Amino acid sequence: MKTGFQHLYIPGPTNVPEVVRQAMIVPMQDHRAPDFGDLTLGLFADLKTVFKTRDGTVMMFPGSGTGCWEAAITNTLSPGDKVLMARHGQFSHLWIEMALKLGLDVQVVDLAWGAATPANEFARILGADRDGAIKAVFVTHNETATGVTSDVAAVRRALDESFHDALLFVDGVSSIGSIDFRMDEWGVDLAVTGSQKGFMMPAGLGMIGVSPKAMAASATARMRRAYFDFADMARMNATGYFPYTPPVQLLHGLRRALDRMLDEGLDTVFARHHRLASGVRAAVSAWGLRLCAEHPSIQSDTVSAIRTPEGVDAREVIRIAYDRFNCSLGSGLGPLNGKVFRIGHLGDLNEGMCLTALSIAEMALHAAGADIAFGSGVAAAQAIYAKPPVALGRTAAPARIAAE
Amino acid sequence: MKTGFQHLYIPGPTNVPEVVRQAMIVPMQDHRAPDFGDLTLGLFADLKTVFKTRDGTVMMFPGSGTGCWEAAITNTLSPGDKVLMARHGQFSHLWIEMALKLGLDVQVVDLAWGAATPANEFARILGADRDGAIKAVFVTHNETATGVTSDVAAVRRALDESFHDALLFVDGVSSIGSIDFRMDEWGVDLAVTGSQKGFMMPAGLGMIGVSPKAMAASATARMRRAYFDFADMARMNATGYFPYTPPVQLLHGLRRALDRMLDEGLDTVFARHHRLASGVRAAVSAWGLRLCAEHPSIQSDTVSAIRTPEGVDAREVIRIAYDRFNCSLGSGLGPLNGKVFRIGHLGDLNEGMCLTALSIAEMALHAAGADIAFGSGVAAAQAIYAKPPVALGRTAAPARIAAE
Amino acid sequence: MKTGFQHLYIPGPTNVPEVVRQAMIVPMQDHRAPDFGDLTLGLFADLKTVFKTRDGTVMMFPGSGTGCWEAAITNTLSPGDKVLMARHGQFSHLWIEMALKLGLDVQVVDLAWGAATPANEFARILGADRDGAIKAVFVTHNETATGVTSDVAAVRRALDESFHDALLFVDGVSSIGSIDFRMDEWGVDLAVTGSQKGFMMPAGLGMIGVSPKAMAASATARMRRAYFDFADMARMNATGYFPYTPPVQLLHGLRRALDRMLDEGLDTVFARHHRLASGVRAAVSAWGLRLCAEHPSIQSDTVSAIRTPEGVDAREVIRIAYDRFNCSLGSGLGPLNGKVFRIGHLGDLNEGMCLTALSIAEMALHAAGADIAFGSGVAAAQAIYAKPPVALGRTAAPARIAAE
Amino acid sequence: MKTGFQHLYIPGPTNVPEVVRQAMIVPMQDHRAPDFGDLTLGLFADLKTVFKTRDGTVMMFPGSGTGCWEAAITNTLSPGDKVLMARHGQFSHLWIEMALKLGLDVQVVDLAWGAATPANEFARILGADRDGAIKAVFVTHNETATGVTSDVAAVRRALDESFHDALLFVDGVSSIGSIDFRMDEWGVDLAVTGSQKGFMMPAGLGMIGVSPKAMAASATARMRRAYFDFADMARMNATGYFPYTPPVQLLHGLRRALDRMLDEGLDTVFARHHRLASGVRAAVSAWGLRLCAEHPSIQSDTVSAIRTPEGVDAREVIRIAYDRFNCSLGSGLGPLNGKVFRIGHLGDLNEGMCLTALSIAEMALHAAGADIAFGSGVAAAQAIYAKPPVALGRTAAPARIAAE
Repeated sequence: MKTGFQHLYIPGPTNVPEVVRQAMIVPMQDHRAPDFGDLTLGLFADLKTVFKTRDGTVMMFPGSGTGCWEAAITNTLSPGDKVLMARHGQFSHLWIEMALKLGLDVQVVDLAWGAATPANEFARILGADRDGAIKAVFVTHNETATGVTSDVAAVRRALDESFHDALLFVDGVSSIGSIDFRMDEWGVDLAVTGSQKGFMMPAGLGMIGVSPKAMAASATARMRRAYFDFADMARMNATGYFPYTPPVQLLHGLRRALDRMLDEGLDTVFARHHRLASGVRAAVSAWGLRLCAEHPSIQSDTVSAIRTPEGVDAREVIRIAYDRFNCSLGSGLGPLNGKVFRIGHLGDLNEGMCLTALSIAEMALHAAGADIAFGSGVAAAQAIYAKPPVALGRTAAPARIAAE
Repeated sequence: MKTGFQHLYIPGPTNVPEVVRQAMIVPMQDHRAPDFGDLTLGLFADLKTVFKTRDGTVMMFPGSGTGCWEAAITNTLSPGDKVLMARHGQFSHLWIEMALKLGLDVQVVDLAWGAATPANEFARILGADRDGAIKAVFVTHNETATGVTSDVAAVRRALDESFHDALLFVDGVSSIGSIDFRMDEWGVDLAVTGSQKGFMMPAGLGMIGVSPKAMAASATARMRRAYFDFADMARMNATGYFPYTPPVQLLHGLRRALDRMLDEGLDTVFARHHRLASGVRAAVSAWGLRLCAEHPSIQSDTVSAIRTPEGVDAREVIRIAYDRFNCSLGSGLGPLNGKVFRIGHLGDLNEGMCLTALSIAEMALHAAGADIAFGSGVAAAQAIYAKPPVALGRTAAPARIAAE
Repeated sequence: MKTGFQHLYIPGPTNVPEVVRQAMIVPMQDHRAPDFGDLTLGLFADLKTVFKTRDGTVMMFPGSGTGCWEAAITNTLSPGDKVLMARHGQFSHLWIEMALKLGLDVQVVDLAWGAATPANEFARILGADRDGAIKAVFVTHNETATGVTSDVAAVRRALDESFHDALLFVDGVSSIGSIDFRMDEWGVDLAVTGSQKGFMMPAGLGMIGVSPKAMAASATARMRRAYFDFADMARMNATGYFPYTPPVQLLHGLRRALDRMLDEGLDTVFARHHRLASGVRAAVSAWGLRLCAEHPSIQSDTVSAIRTPEGVDAREVIRIAYDRFNCSLGSGLGPLNGKVFRIGHLGDLNEGMCLTALSIAEMALHAAGADIAFGSGVAAAQAIYAKPPVALGRTAAPARIAAE
Repeated sequence: MKTGFQHLYIPGPTNVPEVVRQAMIVPMQDHRAPDFGDLTLGLFADLKTVFKTRDGTVMMFPGSGTGCWEAAITNTLSPGDKVLMARHGQFSHLWIEMALKLGLDVQVVDLAWGAATPANEFARILGADRDGAIKAVFVTHNETATGVTSDVAAVRRALDESFHDALLFVDGVSSIGSIDFRMDEWGVDLAVTGSQKGFMMPAGLGMIGVSPKAMAASATARMRRAYFDFADMARMNATGYFPYTPPVQLLHGLRRALDRMLDEGLDTVFARHHRLASGVRAAVSAWGLRLCAEHPSIQSDTVSAIRTPEGVDAREVIRIAYDRFNCSLGSGLGPLNGKVFRIGHLGDLNEGMCLTALSIAEMALHAAGADIAFGSGVAAAQAIYAKPPVALGRTAAPARIAAE
């Protein structure tokens, strides 16, 4: 029999804050009531703030982020359209698979799992695409499987410098709300995320930001869609309603989650994720282990994918953490299975929680046969956490974010 | 400021039982944990019991019942396929609209809103379809907009008697779990429902029953699908997992909801719905009003759509109930708007709840100008509710159900 | 197996509003934390508003209202002190029993159960008590067992007109927060209530208002007390703390309950209780039944004790309501057992809820053998509820309250 | 703004397990309903199992453990009775204060705060009390302020060896349910505890175990009591009811908490507490710090009171943990204020939680000026926690417990 907290350090679903949990404990209500918009209209407005878009539209679909991947494609592209995508982890891989299923002509750039979206390579390809055959470029902003953050702005520059008109799709499932994301500034046309990561909620809502250009494209795109149709959803959302029954309890939770994010201040949220992630990375170094994301410039502030030493099966680390210490760590996906375990460090998190994850990981690594000194990683993280965070004004962007 | 319970008598979402609400107040957990199947595998098994299928597969998609409408179509049909559908209410209308959007060639039988699926007319059409051009026949088992229950078994007979091979699609959103539904016995190939009606949960899960024949059809069907793909879902479900993050809290709620349904006994659940609905119908008669569903044989046990008297705007009845008595009644949809208000009487319900809805409806009707004697409908319902329900063994089917 | 809401119409615990339930779902916290007063200090201030005292102190004791009965006595009186009390229902009876147990010399005025505190008789006794032997006069503001509200102001006048110095004790368990109560204006020295009635919370907190005169008396009173000692509690409360672990979750609930009461406005709360109670009383009249409280001037706005007709056992009414209709009605206590059933109509309540209770009571009365026409009481109440409530400004007192 | 879990490592209230939190989210119900005993009677039975009494009676009082201290005294003793008590921490001190307030003649044995109940000294005093003037002997089984566990069995032996008839009172507030406690075997007459420690609940219920001898004493004891009267409570409890409104939600929580304790097995619960406490003690040693409880034989398995190094204010450690790391540690009480901080390690706890507390304590100690190497205490605890716990049969008592 397991006792105590079930320690949850997977990269989503993340730990739901108490106030969000409270907010979801609602009796059901009429989603067609005249005052339903009192709840929903503010959500759309605040989601725009989080997506950092003034010009775009943010919609919510009952479903998961995967559903919004599909919504992005089917609303704006036509069968046979050529698109440019990079494969560098399980989630970019799955989006490619979906694009193929939906009948797109996908030009795949295959990379090491641990690499970031290759803006330079994309620039080269886009530059060579003189006749604009490429209708869309996809970027996985934060590859959750490898803990790699890509430079979306650089891909935008690649498009702009080639005067290329392709739509820019971004998977922001494990970044939006946790890592700086700037929909308008980066010229993102379709930005996809879900409720169960930075938004600190259960799964069940996919959110999608749609630029005016993407919305215009949806008027002529010829892929079939119904459930995920932008037109129906946007028309109903405009007055606060949905074309079908929404998960009302999640909307109440989202209200409280957004309040929390905006009260903390987005830049403070991002800085907090960076600081906490730095502690985890320091621990990994102290253990003498390596991250999938080798170069510091692409290491994710929301998830760390940690390579186990030669001869130590990552699945065993995860199993021990789960069975003996009531702790869920993320597994290595696809080809990384058995080689990598992941610590999710996003959402409603603090120093003590990261140290919990690290101290359990140390015991599990040790039990799985790794030569890890107890307390070594914890101490490295504590050295960072013991220093108070730098206070941020609400508007000031932390240096690292600005440099992205 | 409103005080007291928010009385909810729309036909979904329905009132969530306390034990189900409790069950959903869970911290998040790892949906890839080794013991996740301990929660989920039993759900699939029990859903099969509720769908009354032994041979079929029941899947759950994060989303709404509407999403499962789409799943049913895109997994089993090909672009341009001819299908047979009847329009006799807003939800059958919307399913037709979806079918058109998805590129089907829809043969629509238009009926009065208040009529049931015309099994005889379908029989005629199917009999005339010698070359089997019709690939699927759609039935809205319970048209939520009009409170009409159709005879699915009769449509099955129509198919069988024509030796017709079309797939049989059934929208059971407001019937499955509340009104007798027999997937295998009636030869239903695709049975769609959602979490927020008879399953007494918030919205957010669509369930779909798929017959072996439909599953086989999905292997060759040429519509594009990804999020709602049966193959991915069925493969993952087989071991208790999902191809993307499921709404774990709803799965916990569903566990408790299924326990409740099966503990009460499905036949007892159906008999209870019938008895409670009879009280509502008696009240409508006592008021001198008419139901959309004029013939008793098609009146729904889950929702009553009540026509307001000449000169009384149903929207006003609904508005008064909401503003003054904190009660949500269902509105008239589409052409019925202003002419009809609906009382949902399904899910976790008892006599006192129906009387609450009726007593508020009386006051709202009166205030909206209807000539209704206070207490008249309530008294008619009480006369029925005052008699104890007939005790059912778990296996005995109540007479009415058996006659369907 | 029971389905649907468990209808709760006993006079406490009352139905807890959803927002209060949400507020109580908290993880535990340190009740000695430096910021604990942020939660608690506002509670004490707002309780003073509800008690209508500026000069007094309101304390909360973990326990029930019964505990505060004891706190009132043991902190301000000495063994053998003479006190004046009336017995006219189960709760005034129990307070007398407690006073005897605690060693007081109780002068009991015995009355019919259904009578109110006899201010005139008290005036006579106090006038005759030339040497001030009587140290305290006890009033049960609202006798929950009989549904009788007494005139506290009249007892204060009786004291004043005799220039009598006795302390004035008031049991406001089922009145404070629901029926107008004016601690300072009426010169109440000890005002007792609990969390589970007008405060719309679970049981577990007793509240007590203590006048400066009572607080002074506690310095010399010679009864033994420890747990309920005013001095310890008042000293700790002053900075927001408690002498022992308080039920933190209830404090969070109380925060939300007080917000609700003060947002609605106390006078609006009182007027709402009066209006809803009037409907219940109209139903009782329509049934041809009588209340324990025969004279309208003393009929309680929070609970109605209804006499069953000759030959109808009230216990049977209650049993049927519970077993067959999932509804809790209050029983007849002490000598009223079997003769009376009670409907609690206080706390977070609206028209539909009262009609629920009435419609179930009709069926239960009928089934128990009473000659009651279905719908008759409901109709009488509807006639009152169908009229919109008179809007009150926040400061205006409704006429009836002012006349008390 | 604080983010993430509020880490709670005070010695009560403790962290409430999720299943217990769920169980308390109930609508109110009638505590006089005919089936109320279905909930409550099993609670009394299972509490007896936890108290390890067959012959005694366990009652629950709405209130705190402090209330049960009073119940124990007022029900079984008479004014002026002589009792024997030791003062060796804040809670034994407060019980002495209460005994004095209630009019007992207290013979106090004053000890260092950090010492245990002096069974030998008690034996000497009892042996000298030839005429049986001492009516009761009080033992604080686990002194929460100092983290000291006393040997109750030794005090029983002291009584027996003197053929002394005094009642044996035990404060088990922070032991019962976490540390082995044997009411019958140790001849305890009055055993007091509360809901917010080993029972893993919010505060609000005091539990008291009463031996037949104590129950007999209550028939003649002459102290005044009413709220805490055994006779009223025992009579009502016998059929599952209470003399006044109980906190129903806590009773539901207790049901689930008891299920959890008995499912885990009491001996496993005790062994778990011992193992987790050993890790904390190893950390304290690794830091080079000392516990209040110097001798290992008296170190508590539920709370550790840790002396800060010379020059380091324990209040500062606590403040930093709270302000910067969102963690509540226990403060030094009375004369220990500023010299001691406490880590509560009881209730629903696991390895990761202890490591969380330790890793935060390290950072807070460091920031407060202590010369503590990051990770040092964590590593010492990990070395213990990395070893799997010894599996226990349900009936086998672990060695240490047996030796007590």
